[in-house]
Amino acid sequence: MKRPNIGTLVVLAGLSVASAAYAADPLPSWNDGAAKKSILQFVAQVTQKGSPEFVPPAERIAVFDNDGTLWAEQPVYFQFMFMLDRVKALAPQHSEWKTEEPFASLLKGDVKAALAGGERAFGQLLMATHAGTTTEEFEKIVSDWIATAKHPKTGRLYTEMVYQPMLELLSYLRASGFKTFIVSGGGIEFMRPWSERVYGVPPEQVIGSSIKTRFEMRDGKPVLVRLPELDFVDDGAGKPVGIQMHIGRRPLAAFGNSDGDLQMFQWTAAGPGTRFCLCVHHTDAEREWAYDRASGVGRLDKGLDEVKTRGWTVVDMRTDWKRVFAFEKP
Amino acid sequence: MKRPNIGTLVVLAGLSVASAAYAADPLPSWNDGAAKKSILQFVAQVTQKGSPEFVPPAERIAVFDNDGTLWAEQPVYFQFMFMLDRVKALAPQHSEWKTEEPFASLLKGDVKAALAGGERAFGQLLMATHAGTTTEEFEKIVSDWIATAKHPKTGRLYTEMVYQPMLELLSYLRASGFKTFIVSGGGIEFMRPWSERVYGVPPEQVIGSSIKTRFEMRDGKPVLVRLPELDFVDDGAGKPVGIQMHIGRRPLAAFGNSDGDLQMFQWTAAGPGTRFCLCVHHTDAEREWAYDRASGVGRLDKGLDEVKTRGWTVVDMRTDWKRVFAFEKP
Repeated sequence: MKRPNIGTLVVLAGLSVASAAYAADPLPSWNDGAAKKSILQFVAQVTQKGSPEFVPPAERIAVFDNDGTLWAEQPVYFQFMFMLDRVKALAPQHSEWKTEEPFASLLKGDVKAALAGGERAFGQLLMATHAGTTTEEFEKIVSDWIATAKHPKTGRLYTEMVYQPMLELLSYLRASGFKTFIVSGGGIEFMRPWSERVYGVPPEQVIGSSIKTRFEMRDGKPVLVRLPELDFVDDGAGKPVGIQMHIGRRPLAAFGNSDGDLQMFQWTAAGPGTRFCLCVHHTDAEREWAYDRASGVGRLDKGLDEVKTRGWTVVDMRTDWKRVFAFEKP
Repeated sequence: MKRPNIGTLVVLAGLSVASAAYAADPLPSWNDGAAKKSILQFVAQVTQKGSPEFVPPAERIAVFDNDGTLWAEQPVYFQFMFMLDRVKALAPQHSEWKTEEPFASLLKGDVKAALAGGERAFGQLLMATHAGTTTEEFEKIVSDWIATAKHPKTGRLYTEMVYQPMLELLSYLRASGFKTFIVSGGGIEFMRPWSERVYGVPPEQVIGSSIKTRFEMRDGKPVLVRLPELDFVDDGAGKPVGIQMHIGRRPLAAFGNSDGDLQMFQWTAAGPGTRFCLCVHHTDAEREWAYDRASGVGRLDKGLDEVKTRGWTVVDMRTDWKRVFAFEKP
């Protein structure tokens, strides 16, 4: 037997430390099955030195959709609930809203009538509640809301409605040298105030939809004012655009749950070497919600077909996840 | 004397390792003087545990302008040279350029006549040379150019025209737990292909001006096509906007050299606690160039006044830097 040299011993010691860190299961809320197996196999392939599929840490970019992938999105996107609450909070300063649509209907609690005006009505609600403040003011508004607002069905804070298996996956990838990004259709400044605390994803790794801002001096103090003008929609074909703009390299792995993530999957999968795409399928009407092709929120239709055709990983929430939310009784 | 506990010993051991790493001067190309002293003092203040000005690593964001701050910008911005070379390279495919302005003048070597058409002419040159390819094609074009193109005065590769003292500063800040970003008026995709190799700044930490892109399927393969439409100008009042869009938090330290960096300085300085702004002043006509208030490239006029009024750090290149470029004879 050849005597191992010092280098080999150092490498072996390093490996055993790495293994020890995950001697315990890194994904304890995942049932043993095809989805979990495919994740572990992918991570092993790209991280083991000497593996033909090895990828240097700098290129280990993982992108996660947010609504329906990291936290729930039913009965409506949580940012929509924020918007409704903001209209109510701002109403005392806008007596004209008592008669002006879409605000009047919304303040009477008739969401359907408020949205009868289509895209224009939605745009009015969005800008009335998301623009007009400085970036610092908006951060405080979101932080205050997210600290207290409760989900209409579960009565939980929205930040408790995050998926425990996905939190474990985020941690596992980071421990394996990945840089984790959020790539969401939701507002970039709606997510940043809490993404680091809840997901461990710092603001500079959050990509989302945005409105324009303008630099101004107010009483000698510089501020960024949020303008009532769309800047970028980070959804569907916008996701690869947002990824290129913010990250500037192609992800190694992408995680999503709806047709809005399809182009992000395609863009990721088209890179050379091993790539990984995982689609969360909402199949659990008891612990969460069951929906796909016909849903108005988080529709998964064309995406489901392509995910299956191409053999990407599908997570069946009902069978693949031991636990959905941390607050569930075990 | 009280016996130190294990925790104290571990901390002390850690400190001595940290000190040992910089027992050698972390900024060897900087002369001892006010500028160097202010850098070392700032870093000590925000990184020493127990200091009233201590800032956690996650918030140690440092932003660097590129042209004139990290690399030279005379006799014209290097990206302008890239543009001229691209017009020449593309000319065989565009016989109409023989008679069409601004291309005709440029191909005859008359830059001044080419730019007589003002902003419109510049826009035409920019889009003809920066748009129309996929993002992957453009990355290769830039990589090939930067690997071979030579500076007209020094005959050096452009990537050799980087300031050695600033490379040391980038490394020192990163070793001190800072995340370093580039925030440049230059094109984001013009810098990314070489920023990691030359500056140690990965593509996801590069912020710059951009044109729009569009996601498309070409023969079943997804591509991002660069469109002849401005998306964002990351200069002047645009820099704080770009910083918010990409980083989502205010920098702790900002490094620049021209009036185009003034709003970035103001935005940085307006944050709570200790902040640091440093302005490189081009005062060395022998080793580099000497210019400020009257220069067409990298003008420093209003900025110089404000930098002095507010007591921000000014680097006098002639006296503060032992060496400007790594290729200089010592």
